[in-house]
Amino acid sequence: MNSPLRSVSAFCAPTAGAALGPVKIERRPVGPRDVLIEIDYCGVCHSDLHMARNDWGMSLFPMVPGHEIIGRVVSTGAEVTDLAAGKRVGVGCLVDSCRQCEACDDHLEQYCVKGFTLTYSSPTRDPGGLTFGGYSKQIVVDRNYVVTVPETLDPAGAAPLLCAGITTWSPLAHWKIGPGMTVGVIGLGGLGHMGVKFAHALGARVVMITTSPQKGEDARKLGADDVLISSDAKAMAGFAGKFDFLLNTIPVPHDFNAYMGLLKRDATMCIVGAIGPAAALNTAPLVMGRRNIAGSLIGGIKETQEMLDFAGLNNITADVEVIDVAAINDAYGRMQRSDVKYRFVIDLATLD
Amino acid sequence: MNSPLRSVSAFCAPTAGAALGPVKIERRPVGPRDVLIEIDYCGVCHSDLHMARNDWGMSLFPMVPGHEIIGRVVSTGAEVTDLAAGKRVGVGCLVDSCRQCEACDDHLEQYCVKGFTLTYSSPTRDPGGLTFGGYSKQIVVDRNYVVTVPETLDPAGAAPLLCAGITTWSPLAHWKIGPGMTVGVIGLGGLGHMGVKFAHALGARVVMITTSPQKGEDARKLGADDVLISSDAKAMAGFAGKFDFLLNTIPVPHDFNAYMGLLKRDATMCIVGAIGPAAALNTAPLVMGRRNIAGSLIGGIKETQEMLDFAGLNNITADVEVIDVAAINDAYGRMQRSDVKYRFVIDLATLD
Repeated sequence: MNSPLRSVSAFCAPTAGAALGPVKIERRPVGPRDVLIEIDYCGVCHSDLHMARNDWGMSLFPMVPGHEIIGRVVSTGAEVTDLAAGKRVGVGCLVDSCRQCEACDDHLEQYCVKGFTLTYSSPTRDPGGLTFGGYSKQIVVDRNYVVTVPETLDPAGAAPLLCAGITTWSPLAHWKIGPGMTVGVIGLGGLGHMGVKFAHALGARVVMITTSPQKGEDARKLGADDVLISSDAKAMAGFAGKFDFLLNTIPVPHDFNAYMGLLKRDATMCIVGAIGPAAALNTAPLVMGRRNIAGSLIGGIKETQEMLDFAGLNNITADVEVIDVAAINDAYGRMQRSDVKYRFVIDLATLD
Repeated sequence: MNSPLRSVSAFCAPTAGAALGPVKIERRPVGPRDVLIEIDYCGVCHSDLHMARNDWGMSLFPMVPGHEIIGRVVSTGAEVTDLAAGKRVGVGCLVDSCRQCEACDDHLEQYCVKGFTLTYSSPTRDPGGLTFGGYSKQIVVDRNYVVTVPETLDPAGAAPLLCAGITTWSPLAHWKIGPGMTVGVIGLGGLGHMGVKFAHALGARVVMITTSPQKGEDARKLGADDVLISSDAKAMAGFAGKFDFLLNTIPVPHDFNAYMGLLKRDATMCIVGAIGPAAALNTAPLVMGRRNIAGSLIGGIKETQEMLDFAGLNNITADVEVIDVAAINDAYGRMQRSDVKYRFVIDLATLD
């Protein structure tokens, strides 16, 4: 028999805003193209908190959050020939897409024109189904949406690569960041600290842009070459026109006009944190320097694999605080207070 | 003697908001790299109106407006060997730049990091000087900032190519618009009508995006293949994700978020009309499709020449209403009411 028991222990938000607690869920049977994964670690993304509270009005309950999943293959369906039992694998923010649109053809499933299937709290493409995420002992995922994780990486630290990592890697890769370029990373949190690590490893000169001198010093330890305190008008003027790329990881609406003058002609500020209504845009810095504002959403499966391979070669993981699953509600509280450096990761061995 | 009399008839705004009237100005002597031009036609740009009223707080008086200049070479300095007397030439929005920065090296003098010298109402790089524009019988300009104009083009219709033309050409060329692409031109005025003509001539499918069905029909006559009425939510939804590029020529602050969903993944909306504070930006369409908002400013001298050569080959000029110089104050009034299709051009033969 290929599959063990289908009843799986998980941690669940029963309703919006309720405390999470243990439940048993029924996982789907392992289909011919599926992979059954025993989960070792799951990162705690800030979006988990928003989803559990239904801040975006799109949550479905009961909800098992978690889309930064690291585990090992237990078994696979008959058509999966390239993943043996025991292999270390990962699952990120998406577990399915239409597989037919131009975005899917381009390996950019995150922009699937029919909408991708979220790893949790999402209707499955088979009507009636609901996805459950990584705060769980096991998950079943189509092979096409499973990535392999280098054995050399610390698995707890690797978990956040599946969301925070790829969210910062994808724009850095798309805009071809490399040696000779100066990259500003705006904001130092779960996303920002990965942006600093990746931009540094890609060979760019990295400048941490923050209001907090302490965060600036922290960023230097992560690989930043310089720090720009954004509330210091004189310092900002000194960096005017110096940046080839700005990765804006600030997670809340903010005035981004002040940053635009930091860009060189034709350069781009990419927003990966604050999604939704923002401050009024002043078009003058765009027009006067042919500058660009863009956005970027997580990443496709192919580029997620490329990111993990790069992370393996360069020994890049997130800085994490590993917690017992029972501590998740406290962790949410600390995340709201930005009291984490830089990501909580649940050790699923603590889930019975 | 190489140069005729240095006293030149012009039309001048003596102070901010005052009516323009005739004056005599003293042009500079023709230096070794200069070209003396007898002006035949000068387009009336909407910015002339703003500058004459000092709307932007940067105007210097007395002011002779005009930066869409078509004329013929009268004489040249000794070092100018490639422009014979009688040659049809043009002068656009800029008559000098630092010539040393990266932008100048890249033939993009409009982004000169030290600031380019405006054709009128601008301090010259020699301290104490003030530039006077094309509402005048003559102008002296450094050869490097003079372009040649195909003899086959109607000279009055060619005048607006020097600002409205290059302002729309430059982004279309930079973003490599061509066959197989769908381009939306937002707004139909001096800029928009040139955008339609150029995008069509470059081989793109052109969609006029406007609130006015009448402007839509007008745009079809200029080369638009289709019309999208932006106040029609159903029509807008039908064009969602269809555009490779949007050229936004609306001249006033407006909500541009509604247009962003029209773009394909990775596509750009470029703002060329509204410079300054705009509406609040919603980042969701940027993040969800890796879409871009950019701006673009007029164009460099090299690309202005390329645009004119292309216009000559394709017989592209602006649709203009030729006026006597004495009608300029009335023309400003009509421009404020958007009562012009699509550009006033002054016939300088009417200036004594």
